[in-house]
Amino acid sequence: MTEPAFIAALRALAQDPAARGLDDDVAVIDLGGESLILTHDMMVEGIHWLPEQDPADVAWKLVATNLSDLAAKGAQPLGVLLGYGLGGGEARFLAGLEEVLHAFAVPLLGGDTVRRGASATHGLTALGRATHRPVPSRKGARAGDTLWVTGTLGAAMLGFEALKEGQKGSESPEIAAFTRPVPRLAEGRALAPHVTAMMDVSDGLLLDATRLARASGITLAVDSSACPFPASLSPERRRAALSWGDDYELLFTLPAGQTPPVPAACIGKALPPGPAPLLLDGQAPVGVLGYEHG
Amino acid sequence: MTEPAFIAALRALAQDPAARGLDDDVAVIDLGGESLILTHDMMVEGIHWLPEQDPADVAWKLVATNLSDLAAKGAQPLGVLLGYGLGGGEARFLAGLEEVLHAFAVPLLGGDTVRRGASATHGLTALGRATHRPVPSRKGARAGDTLWVTGTLGAAMLGFEALKEGQKGSESPEIAAFTRPVPRLAEGRALAPHVTAMMDVSDGLLLDATRLARASGITLAVDSSACPFPASLSPERRRAALSWGDDYELLFTLPAGQTPPVPAACIGKALPPGPAPLLLDGQAPVGVLGYEHG
Repeated sequence: MTEPAFIAALRALAQDPAARGLDDDVAVIDLGGESLILTHDMMVEGIHWLPEQDPADVAWKLVATNLSDLAAKGAQPLGVLLGYGLGGGEARFLAGLEEVLHAFAVPLLGGDTVRRGASATHGLTALGRATHRPVPSRKGARAGDTLWVTGTLGAAMLGFEALKEGQKGSESPEIAAFTRPVPRLAEGRALAPHVTAMMDVSDGLLLDATRLARASGITLAVDSSACPFPASLSPERRRAALSWGDDYELLFTLPAGQTPPVPAACIGKALPPGPAPLLLDGQAPVGVLGYEHG
Repeated sequence: MTEPAFIAALRALAQDPAARGLDDDVAVIDLGGESLILTHDMMVEGIHWLPEQDPADVAWKLVATNLSDLAAKGAQPLGVLLGYGLGGGEARFLAGLEEVLHAFAVPLLGGDTVRRGASATHGLTALGRATHRPVPSRKGARAGDTLWVTGTLGAAMLGFEALKEGQKGSESPEIAAFTRPVPRLAEGRALAPHVTAMMDVSDGLLLDATRLARASGITLAVDSSACPFPASLSPERRRAALSWGDDYELLFTLPAGQTPPVPAACIGKALPPGPAPLLLDGQAPVGVLGYEHG
């Protein structure tokens, strides 16, 4: 069985595809007058982090990426459960875990520790409550909406490249963008009442925008000259930055004429569905759009 | 940093030890007039299952063991999130997953898939809602209470041994007890309004009873001749069965004179705290009490 077939089968097994997700999305459950948001991500040594990376950064990223999923739902985090593979680096992991929980005022609720196999695998489940209903999803964008993104795109890519080149000692903002992403929790809550669709950019703007367009049944037209990049990104790397994930910014659509309540760049608009879900400067983009899971 | 020190540090990081747990316990969160129960377990190839085992059984056990944690809280399952390490056996895993979700009417809500490292690691988060409050915990046993256990102890041990000896084709009830444990969900809900303390027996009766005794600040006196064993267990294996986990029965205490609303065996009583948290036939047990995580 191929990996895409397995993921498709899991999605089919999830009974209510509108409210639940596998791999990219989060679960939304209505209970007791609240909407609960649940998300679970795993990280594997050698795949999601470099073996030489500080385990404190691994802990930070494990928590921060799940909180970013909550941010995209406008949710207030209630806590996390940790699944930890024991076998080395525990003291540094713990230091990073304490930092990230404190930074975002999120309690550790429980979890599990197991002896790791040949490589370490950790998992994290984050629980939140929606602060606005309906809970923002990828599905609500309509033709005529404007497309926006918070922050900049590409700093995490530069940080990853600096780390690979061994600039470990460096404390550059780019390395921090890769190792210590900051989930846009406050922005997500501020945006939730206004957006027609929202998601976080974890796998690359072009890929994630394609997913939003497909889920909403529209075409998104992205204007690359309007995309926000860090000053340290050279112009020839801009296309690469558009298909690199890990910045954990929020991508969202607003009804035409509205402006967002938080700083963000307007990078395009939603069109009626066309032959391609995504247009980059008027054309279907060629090449890699982002990081495909599997 | 040693593994026990790491686990102790994680426990300390969990801000409210009364309501939350690491490794053995579950999280209880009050929200919107409901008490949510959350539990997360990981399973690692070669540690929690034999590499030659059917992935369908791995899927069953991953879900069933988490549901057993919900059962011990008298909770109604609301759904699960799966963290799956891709790399082989997906079709059989999916078949088992579908079976177990159907068997216990639990929806798959979401999760994550990642490429596995050298050995497979899967995680599962289960969410439930309490059907009775206060939610049963390990802490409530009082001197004078009687101690009870559902089902029998030792079938999973016999099944594991049969599997190790290569009786794979066999469909014995013992092998099924090991590969396809049945969480006591209905029993847990029926018991929740009556028990003073409750937990599931996942790591061995003697070890889990010791934990319950410690959490409640009492001594538990277990009478081995009253313990329920499967007919296929020879008398000389009874002591081993008392320190073998994986049966996923419910261990609970009742006020003196009360009888449980579900079939169960009275196996002892709670005494004022003494020098040992556990007495087996009047003496502190020697040797292995159960499976210690780490």
